[in-house]
Amino acid sequence: MSAISNGDIFVGETLGTAALILLGGGVCAAVTLKKSKAQNAGWLAITFGWGFAVLIAAYISAHKSGAHLNPAVTLALAVKTGDWSHVPLYIGSQLIGAMIGAVLVWLTYLGQFQQNEEPTLGIFSTGPEIRNPIQNLLTEIIGTMVLCLLILTSGLTLGDQLSGIGILITAFTVVGIGLSLGGPTGYAINPARDLGPRIVHSLLPIPNKGTSDWSYAWIPVAGPMIGGLLSGLLYKGLF
Amino acid sequence: MSAISNGDIFVGETLGTAALILLGGGVCAAVTLKKSKAQNAGWLAITFGWGFAVLIAAYISAHKSGAHLNPAVTLALAVKTGDWSHVPLYIGSQLIGAMIGAVLVWLTYLGQFQQNEEPTLGIFSTGPEIRNPIQNLLTEIIGTMVLCLLILTSGLTLGDQLSGIGILITAFTVVGIGLSLGGPTGYAINPARDLGPRIVHSLLPIPNKGTSDWSYAWIPVAGPMIGGLLSGLLYKGLF
Amino acid sequence: MSAISNGDIFVGETLGTAALILLGGGVCAAVTLKKSKAQNAGWLAITFGWGFAVLIAAYISAHKSGAHLNPAVTLALAVKTGDWSHVPLYIGSQLIGAMIGAVLVWLTYLGQFQQNEEPTLGIFSTGPEIRNPIQNLLTEIIGTMVLCLLILTSGLTLGDQLSGIGILITAFTVVGIGLSLGGPTGYAINPARDLGPRIVHSLLPIPNKGTSDWSYAWIPVAGPMIGGLLSGLLYKGLF
Amino acid sequence: MSAISNGDIFVGETLGTAALILLGGGVCAAVTLKKSKAQNAGWLAITFGWGFAVLIAAYISAHKSGAHLNPAVTLALAVKTGDWSHVPLYIGSQLIGAMIGAVLVWLTYLGQFQQNEEPTLGIFSTGPEIRNPIQNLLTEIIGTMVLCLLILTSGLTLGDQLSGIGILITAFTVVGIGLSLGGPTGYAINPARDLGPRIVHSLLPIPNKGTSDWSYAWIPVAGPMIGGLLSGLLYKGLF
Repeated sequence: MSAISNGDIFVGETLGTAALILLGGGVCAAVTLKKSKAQNAGWLAITFGWGFAVLIAAYISAHKSGAHLNPAVTLALAVKTGDWSHVPLYIGSQLIGAMIGAVLVWLTYLGQFQQNEEPTLGIFSTGPEIRNPIQNLLTEIIGTMVLCLLILTSGLTLGDQLSGIGILITAFTVVGIGLSLGGPTGYAINPARDLGPRIVHSLLPIPNKGTSDWSYAWIPVAGPMIGGLLSGLLYKGLF
Repeated sequence: MSAISNGDIFVGETLGTAALILLGGGVCAAVTLKKSKAQNAGWLAITFGWGFAVLIAAYISAHKSGAHLNPAVTLALAVKTGDWSHVPLYIGSQLIGAMIGAVLVWLTYLGQFQQNEEPTLGIFSTGPEIRNPIQNLLTEIIGTMVLCLLILTSGLTLGDQLSGIGILITAFTVVGIGLSLGGPTGYAINPARDLGPRIVHSLLPIPNKGTSDWSYAWIPVAGPMIGGLLSGLLYKGLF
Repeated sequence: MSAISNGDIFVGETLGTAALILLGGGVCAAVTLKKSKAQNAGWLAITFGWGFAVLIAAYISAHKSGAHLNPAVTLALAVKTGDWSHVPLYIGSQLIGAMIGAVLVWLTYLGQFQQNEEPTLGIFSTGPEIRNPIQNLLTEIIGTMVLCLLILTSGLTLGDQLSGIGILITAFTVVGIGLSLGGPTGYAINPARDLGPRIVHSLLPIPNKGTSDWSYAWIPVAGPMIGGLLSGLLYKGLF
Repeated sequence: MSAISNGDIFVGETLGTAALILLGGGVCAAVTLKKSKAQNAGWLAITFGWGFAVLIAAYISAHKSGAHLNPAVTLALAVKTGDWSHVPLYIGSQLIGAMIGAVLVWLTYLGQFQQNEEPTLGIFSTGPEIRNPIQNLLTEIIGTMVLCLLILTSGLTLGDQLSGIGILITAFTVVGIGLSLGGPTGYAINPARDLGPRIVHSLLPIPNKGTSDWSYAWIPVAGPMIGGLLSGLLYKGLF
């Protein structure tokens, strides 16, 4: 990590996470909002949309910052490498990028948002189907561990996790996590992906936007952070 | 660019863009027209259909012309490289190819078109769900910038954006843009893709074909052109 | 081609085309037959099923015979290379393989076929939505040309069309042709894929199996053959 | 195989098969259970979910144990190589991993399981649409042979079946087998995938969980084992 300049980390993570949220939040907007051509396109559209969001975001930012795009991934890699010096810069950039991405979703669907009549938090952030802090935390930890273990081991299989094929596999992994583990909580598996857009949701002037549900906000932050740390430790123990 | 002959540019871009529109327009025909086996196959079919249209078109034309297939991509690459000498030839070839592709869609679905009873412009060109020039322009600019930034940076990640894996990633990127950003305007993100088929739509003898909606036609041309230029400038500023 | 032994051609094409039809016919059985878990899974399932059938079949047979699996592809490659000596062996093996594959579909879904109450030809062979020989022929020619041009040019882009990534791109191309051009006739685009299973359909003891529609049978043979020849000529003219 | 230590085999196969079942069982839970965001997402979601489960599991474990993840694959490779010395360790580790994975599915969807009112065996193990031992066995043998033949020949095409592209192709192969051959029995094609979770299903405290259907349990064990052996023999005879 130390070979990457602070400026490259900032640009890569901010730009990449903005693209991630623009496309990930975008598919939720596309499927949810009225007068969208994709309305009711279903869960498969949402999960592939988030997967390709990762593909695009990682591909754009890989050369600059290594495309973490997720504080849980940054934590897992810090545990693996023992280098914690850039962790705050990575996480800060990711949070800024996520907020920019959420604003871009709003701009892309501005006409639809202006005519909105339903709660909109689901376009920006995750929420549970059955509200139970311990269970929701556990679901987020498990989902994040699958993601982080795959990223940690990808260097072993491909030599370089930032190749085109490595990024493609990571993208389909995110589709798979969504399809398989997303049912209970909507798979945040990324603190920046959930917290950044939630802040923006609370600030944007959307009619009838509904609650930003701050009482749940700590779970999609804490769960993925714990999952990232446990993945790093498990990797060091097994590999 | 200068190592490619004018003849290769013309053949590659005309053939490639014809394939792009044959397959991209084709999936819209397949899902829309009556007495098609794919009728009502849904938004996921349309977005994957367009993505694989890019895959096929880029793969066929990459060796000849570098597979721009899109005036916005040509602009973005010209800003990046500073070489504007072939821009008119690229764009002209793309527009001719797009018109040929639209005629091929009509020939492929000739029986279905002959029995047509509904407006058909959606098979050929894009249109907004909520008509608002500034908002529609903004949506097209954002979608095009995602596409062009990915193409501009792909050389950094893969060394060569025209490898098989680079073309596959570009194709899935177009699926992702469709799923995530296509809701408001149907994601033209390519002036030739929209204008060429619109011209053909206005000329073809399709019963009950409906309006060619020329009042909207400038937006899916201007939006992607602006998006391509901004992408080139952003790339030069950041990378 | 001359470096491949006759035995390898026979084994590779027979095994590969049997796998192609087992999986391609299989997805049609899965989506069509009653008491199948996939019943009514839709057009997207059928098109991806056929695409992955190509992936599997090509991958298994590539090392043996070069994975033509389709008389139209064999013709196109013969026009390209000028070597016609193995064409009869390739086509004969493909037809035998296709018939074996169709029997394997029947064995896989034996219980479902035994309780069948509906026409079953659609599981084995293609048919038009609007019956018009010239139009149906044209649709098959266009679809086959897209497939063959992609295969002919893949050597230019990848160096070797039989690499893993080349096979993956060919598979997604077949998904794309299905989504975009399959609406009018069900995209045979392969004479062996249609004729072999049609022969088997006429022979199998399936209750209420319905007609084998021999009056249409020449179109999905002649159309793809013409498409293969035209692709070879177009390739030689342009590349 | 002999170059891999026993510890690596145990860790790789246990971890990998646990991931396989967590994600494969997970998508069945996601689509089946009430109060899941993916409820009724359909057969395409299930088949892609299982395919990406293979992708993730193989990718995580490939470097350790070669990612068999399936006793039928272990058998087929033993027939191919003639090395049977590690077969018991592979199969034992796969079964343990599958049981761990099934428990993880239960933990991920704990809230949904606690409110369960329907039979749940379909989330853990397979069952036939039409119960007929010979037919069900035949379907499982055919499906497993497609999988094993692809894995056995992948070394011929790619040089190394454990590359990123080889794993991606294997994953899409599993999607294809599901789409095409999964209709009659739900495609176990892996004894550990079916038996391990069935044992766990019989032990877990899920309300209204229904029968574990032990009378069927031998078929998704015997069918894939026979399929694996026949694949190894067919490979040795043909390649």
